[in-house]
Amino acid sequence: MINVTIWNEFVHENIHDEVKAVYPEGIHAALAAGLDGNGFAITTATLDQPEHGLTEEVLNATDVLVWWGHMAHDQVSDEVVARVVKRVLGGMGLIVLHSGHFSKPFKALMGTSCDLKWREAGEQEIIWNVNPSHPISMGIDAKIILEHEEMYGEFFDIPAPDELVFISNFEGGEVFRSGCTFRRGQGKIFYFRPGHETFPTYYQPEILKVIANAINWAYPLQTPAPVFGNMQPVRELKPAAVL
Amino acid sequence: MINVTIWNEFVHENIHDEVKAVYPEGIHAALAAGLDGNGFAITTATLDQPEHGLTEEVLNATDVLVWWGHMAHDQVSDEVVARVVKRVLGGMGLIVLHSGHFSKPFKALMGTSCDLKWREAGEQEIIWNVNPSHPISMGIDAKIILEHEEMYGEFFDIPAPDELVFISNFEGGEVFRSGCTFRRGQGKIFYFRPGHETFPTYYQPEILKVIANAINWAYPLQTPAPVFGNMQPVRELKPAAVL
Amino acid sequence: MINVTIWNEFVHENIHDEVKAVYPEGIHAALAAGLDGNGFAITTATLDQPEHGLTEEVLNATDVLVWWGHMAHDQVSDEVVARVVKRVLGGMGLIVLHSGHFSKPFKALMGTSCDLKWREAGEQEIIWNVNPSHPISMGIDAKIILEHEEMYGEFFDIPAPDELVFISNFEGGEVFRSGCTFRRGQGKIFYFRPGHETFPTYYQPEILKVIANAINWAYPLQTPAPVFGNMQPVRELKPAAVL
Amino acid sequence: MINVTIWNEFVHENIHDEVKAVYPEGIHAALAAGLDGNGFAITTATLDQPEHGLTEEVLNATDVLVWWGHMAHDQVSDEVVARVVKRVLGGMGLIVLHSGHFSKPFKALMGTSCDLKWREAGEQEIIWNVNPSHPISMGIDAKIILEHEEMYGEFFDIPAPDELVFISNFEGGEVFRSGCTFRRGQGKIFYFRPGHETFPTYYQPEILKVIANAINWAYPLQTPAPVFGNMQPVRELKPAAVL
Repeated sequence: MINVTIWNEFVHENIHDEVKAVYPEGIHAALAAGLDGNGFAITTATLDQPEHGLTEEVLNATDVLVWWGHMAHDQVSDEVVARVVKRVLGGMGLIVLHSGHFSKPFKALMGTSCDLKWREAGEQEIIWNVNPSHPISMGIDAKIILEHEEMYGEFFDIPAPDELVFISNFEGGEVFRSGCTFRRGQGKIFYFRPGHETFPTYYQPEILKVIANAINWAYPLQTPAPVFGNMQPVRELKPAAVL
Repeated sequence: MINVTIWNEFVHENIHDEVKAVYPEGIHAALAAGLDGNGFAITTATLDQPEHGLTEEVLNATDVLVWWGHMAHDQVSDEVVARVVKRVLGGMGLIVLHSGHFSKPFKALMGTSCDLKWREAGEQEIIWNVNPSHPISMGIDAKIILEHEEMYGEFFDIPAPDELVFISNFEGGEVFRSGCTFRRGQGKIFYFRPGHETFPTYYQPEILKVIANAINWAYPLQTPAPVFGNMQPVRELKPAAVL
Repeated sequence: MINVTIWNEFVHENIHDEVKAVYPEGIHAALAAGLDGNGFAITTATLDQPEHGLTEEVLNATDVLVWWGHMAHDQVSDEVVARVVKRVLGGMGLIVLHSGHFSKPFKALMGTSCDLKWREAGEQEIIWNVNPSHPISMGIDAKIILEHEEMYGEFFDIPAPDELVFISNFEGGEVFRSGCTFRRGQGKIFYFRPGHETFPTYYQPEILKVIANAINWAYPLQTPAPVFGNMQPVRELKPAAVL
Repeated sequence: MINVTIWNEFVHENIHDEVKAVYPEGIHAALAAGLDGNGFAITTATLDQPEHGLTEEVLNATDVLVWWGHMAHDQVSDEVVARVVKRVLGGMGLIVLHSGHFSKPFKALMGTSCDLKWREAGEQEIIWNVNPSHPISMGIDAKIILEHEEMYGEFFDIPAPDELVFISNFEGGEVFRSGCTFRRGQGKIFYFRPGHETFPTYYQPEILKVIANAINWAYPLQTPAPVFGNMQPVRELKPAAVL
C-alpha cells in the first residue's frame, strides 16, 4: 500500500467561478477520486491548513507527494518547503503537476529558474510518448490528446531530465518537455505538464493513468540510506591473491 | 510470473578443470539455482543446443534473457543474434553479464567496440552503489565486496549509459562502470560486470540480488508497440478554442 | 582547418525533376557552397564513385563526415559502412542529415531500428532550441521556422540522445527530437532532422549555421586513443602515505 | 580572450602552516600562475574582500568563475550566492573545485545535499578518463596519478551529471565521480574533485590542463537569452501546403 498525499493550494477553486465549475471540491479532491482504485492510501492537504497540512508527521508517513500550486506559491512557508525537500532527498517520491513548475520545492530541487513560455488560448495539446519502455508510460499509446489546455512552450529552464518520457505539441506551434524524471538524493521526481485549472484535464483517464504510473515509479525503495562523512581509518592494504 | 531464460555458452566448464570445480553444472545452472525463489519461471539454454536453444518460440516466450559468454562469442550464429536483437527492440529485457560485454548481441545493440582493459590477478573488487534510488540497487548497501575477481578497467567503450548504477574499484588501481542501464527500442538492457568463471561470484547473495532486481526492472511492460511509417493524411487543422 | 567530407547518395537529383529543380548540382554541392566561409576544407563524395568516394585514404583525411542518403541506403557497401563506423569510433565526427536516419552507418552506431513516422505534406516545421548553452545551438534564437518540410514524428527509435538540442513541432500535430548528440568511442555524432529533397531547406541560413556549429563541435580532439586489453602485471601495492 | 575570476576563501593558507607551506600566496594565486599562458585574462577574488570580491560589476565581466572554498562556506553571504547563481543561469561558466562541493552556490545549483565520504590519509588517487571525446579531457591520457590526496568516496549526492568525464580510484578502495558536467540555464558547470589544501595538486600539469580545458568548455556562447512568459497571441493557423 503506497501512502499518497495530494497537496493543492486550493485557491483558484474558491475564488474563480469558472474553476469552481470544473473542480467544485478542488483539484486535490478530483485527483483523489480519479486515482482511487489503484491500491493507494490517499490523503489530501491544502495551503490553508496548519503548516499547509504538511507536518513532519504527515510527510514522514507519505511515500509519494503530489503537488499542484499556482497563484499562491509565495505563501508556502520556507520551513515547509525545506521539510519537503529534505524528505524528497531522503526518499519520498514527488509528482509535480502543471503550474507546480514554479513551486518553491521544485525550484529548490532543480536549482534553475524553471521558467517557460505560456499562453491561455485553449489550444489542443498532443502529448507524445517518446519513451515506450518506461514504467511511467506503461499502457499509454503513442499519444494523448487534450482538446483544450494552456500552452507551455520551450525553452523550459530545467536541468536536462534524467529521462524524457513525454513531449507535447501545441496547436500554436510550440513544443514542451511534458514528462520528465529527475533523481535527487534517494528520491524520485516526476514533472508532468498538463492540468490548467480551467480545463477538465484531471478527469481524463490517460492523464490519471500517467499519474498513477508515476506514483508507482516514485515509490521509495527499501535501500539503506547512504552514509556520509569521515571514513577513518583506511582499510589495511594487502597484496592481491595471485600477484 | 516473469519468464527468464538464462543463456550460457557452457564451454569453460566443460574443458577447464578449475572452472568445472567452481561451476560443476555450468554457470547457467548456478544462476538458475541462485535466482530460485524470486517468483521467476527460469529455463536455461546453451550454445551446443540447436539454434543455441534460442528458437523463435523460446525467445517469444522469454520476458528477460540473461547472457553469459566468453571464449565462444564467434560461434553464436548471426541469425540467432539478429533474432535476439529484434526481440530486445520489441521489448524483451536483456541482462548481460561480465565477459558478455564482447557478445555479438550486446555489441550490436551498443554500436561500439565494447572493449576494455582486463587483468586476471584475483584482485579484490569493491562495487559501489552510485544510484541509491534505482530499482536495480534496491536493498543493496553502499558497497559489495568480492574478494577475488578478474579486473575490468576503463575506458570501457560503450555509449554513455542511460543510468549508471554501480562503479567498481579494483585493488590494482582501476575503476569500471560496473552496472549500466540502456534502453533500446521497447527493451531494457542491464550490463553487470562481475562473474569471472574461475571465482564463485554467482554464489554471492548480493550479486544474485542485483541480478534478480535487474530482471524485475527489465520485465517488458504492457505498452502498445510504436507505430512507424507513413502517417497520411494530415489532420484537419482547426482554430484553437478561444483565439 | 577542419577537413569536411560531404557525402550524398545523389540519386534523387538525377532522376526526379522536382528535386533537380531545387538542387541542380546535388544536395552535396548546395551544402558545400552554403558552408563555405566557415574555415572548413570541404570536399564531396557520392555513391556512384569508386568505393562511394570513401576510400581509406579519404576517410583518414576526414575530420567530420556529413551524410545525406535516402532511396539508395541499401546500395552502400557493407565494407564502406564498416570503414565509416570504425573511423567514427576512432574519432571522426559524423553529421547525419534527415533521411540519413535510415543509413547503414547510423543504424550500426545506434543499435536500434531508427524508425519513425513520416508524412509528405509540405507542413510548416518549427525547430525549437531546448539547449541554449550547447555549442550546436550557438547563435540560434528560440526557434527556426521552415515553411515547408516533410514531417518526421515520434516515436523515433533511437537510444536516448546524450544531449537533446532541438525539438520540432509540425503543423499536423507531431513532435520530433530533431537535434541529437551521441558519443561513440572517440567520435561525436549529431543527427539533424531537416532536409527533405524537394524543399530548399539547405539554403536557409539558420540551417547552415547549425550544421557549421555541429562540424565545429564534432571535430576530433587531440586526445590519445584509449588502450585496451591485458594490463598485466598489477601495480605493486604500497601503504598509503600517512596511514 | 576569456575573462576568468578565481575565487578562493583564502583562510587555510593564513592560519595553517602546513597549507601555507604548500600555497604561500594562496590557492587562487597558485591557480592563476598555473593557468597563465592559456590566453585567459585572470583575476582573483577572496572572501575577505568587500562583497567577497564578487560585485555585480566583477561578475558581469566574468566569463568563467573558478571556486575553491572549504572551512568558511557559511561566511559567504547569501546575497553574493544569489548573484553568482543568477549569473550562472545567465551564462557564466562555473568551475567548482574539491571541497567547493559544499559551497553555497554549488548546492543551490544542484538542489541536493552534495554530501560524500572523505578521509584524510594521503592516499594515492588515480583519475581515469571515461570520456575520451570530451573537450574537458582533451590531451589527457588514460589516467592522472596524484601521489597523495584526500579521499572522497561515493555515494556523492549530486544529480546524475549530464556528462561524466572522470572517475577516481583511491588506494583505500573507494571510487568517486571526479569530473562531472552540468548545464543549468544558459550556464555550464564543471565539478572537479582534486585539490586538498595540504597537497601540491594544483601545481601538477595535468590538473591545470583539465582546469584550462574546462574553462574553455564553460565559456559562455553568443546565443540569445531565452524569452519567457506570456506568448499571446497564438499564431494564425493556416492549412499546410499540399494538404
